Amino acid sequence: MNPVIETILNHRSIRKFKDQPLSKEQIELIVKSAQAASTSSYIQAYSIIGVSDPAKKQALSEVAGNQAYVANNGHFFVFCADLHRHQKIGEYEGRNVMPSIESTEKFMVTLIDAALAAQNAAVAAESMGLGLCYIGGIRNNLEKVAEILKTPDHVIPLFGLAVGFPDTQTDQKPRLPLEHVYHENEYQQDEALYKKQIEEYDQLIQAYYIKRTSGKRDDTWSTQMCEMLEKQSRMYMKEFVQKKGLNLK
Amino acid sequence: MNPVIETILNHRSIRKFKDQPLSKEQIELIVKSAQAASTSSYIQAYSIIGVSDPAKKQALSEVAGNQAYVANNGHFFVFCADLHRHQKIGEYEGRNVMPSIESTEKFMVTLIDAALAAQNAAVAAESMGLGLCYIGGIRNNLEKVAEILKTPDHVIPLFGLAVGFPDTQTDQKPRLPLEHVYHENEYQQDEALYKKQIEEYDQLIQAYYIKRTSGKRDDTWSTQMCEMLEKQSRMYMKEFVQKKGLNLK
Repeated sequence: MNPVIETILNHRSIRKFKDQPLSKEQIELIVKSAQAASTSSYIQAYSIIGVSDPAKKQALSEVAGNQAYVANNGHFFVFCADLHRHQKIGEYEGRNVMPSIESTEKFMVTLIDAALAAQNAAVAAESMGLGLCYIGGIRNNLEKVAEILKTPDHVIPLFGLAVGFPDTQTDQKPRLPLEHVYHENEYQQDEALYKKQIEEYDQLIQAYYIKRTSGKRDDTWSTQMCEMLEKQSRMYMKEFVQKKGLNLK
Repeated sequence: MNPVIETILNHRSIRKFKDQPLSKEQIELIVKSAQAASTSSYIQAYSIIGVSDPAKKQALSEVAGNQAYVANNGHFFVFCADLHRHQKIGEYEGRNVMPSIESTEKFMVTLIDAALAAQNAAVAAESMGLGLCYIGGIRNNLEKVAEILKTPDHVIPLFGLAVGFPDTQTDQKPRLPLEHVYHENEYQQDEALYKKQIEEYDQLIQAYYIKRTSGKRDDTWSTQMCEMLEKQSRMYMKEFVQKKGLNLK
């Protein structure tokens, strides 16, 4: 075990930060770390918007369901899928890049690119003793987020990353069994085993919740997932993404 | 600068590996690191398939345009977007999860989840002195990849990660200027500045290629991007993903 893997395995989401902004040096090191990630065919199809303006942070916090830690943190990063610069380059160079930009393939590339960069940023931040929490809640209303951050077409704000000096200790939630997530040479074909792994994990999670909440909460991972998925949240997404000129063909 | 950030900033793709497989312990540590990444609402919507079978590696290498390092490495990981287990859970629990699973929102979630996990795996591997290269080329023919890896519906193999003991030294390719990728409080609204940043970067990349190839190659980043995007690769993707039951609504 080395310090890098220790940092990675020690990750937990932090949702309460001290009232202390990140330094310019910290922000730069986090962004440089993001940029060092691999990028598909050198495409670099993402942008990062650092939000320090309190009014904008407050507005984003409201979009994300009034989560206080979206407004109160050391710095708030928004990671965006970005093919705007490639659309512009096509325009500057007079080349026909639009069918590619509008493809599902490139939509996938830009999401993956942005997420690889974000996770480098996250690991870098945690290595400096900072805490963080990914904020998918900004996707509750991307029309509003695009207005707040003035993002152009072919840019989709994907998630926030609230970073700051931790003001709380949190638990790590147990992950799915390694054997369930990791398959050897082919996807698990034995459905009985597959189901058994989920059942055992459900028992583990139920015991975890009972212990953590002194019995007030006793759901399993499966019931938690079903609750979440039955809600059908953010069903406007397909239309929004296509209106922005991505995932069209 | 700490050892974690040093590892991250020192990243470069490695495409030639020694003939030495990763140990079981290395593979486990890499997968555990992947699993430690943040996951949207605890959804854990990805799977990792570790490929060691030489015939399967060879077949994947052919899909990826006969890249030798897809077949010859210490271990080959395939990261998959995976909502199959959530579809199954809905079935086991008798709950209506399908509209969510078929949504563009959850398609985005599963791609982001898989990529966050992958980047943790990548950083962990590099911290152990291993080299790696992401392989988007498996997306050349996902029908074939799904057949090789026997992935069910609601699973999309996204990219490979070839990992191994490095047998070569490589350069780092300069990234876009930080000011171009990182915006403060809102997306860059000054198009003249935006364009100038790309032009300066183009000059930097041109000089880099001229130096690296003793003048044989002198393209800019913009021309490289236009070449790539004009090709319209993998335009079957939308249909494939929808046939697998994702990104439908």
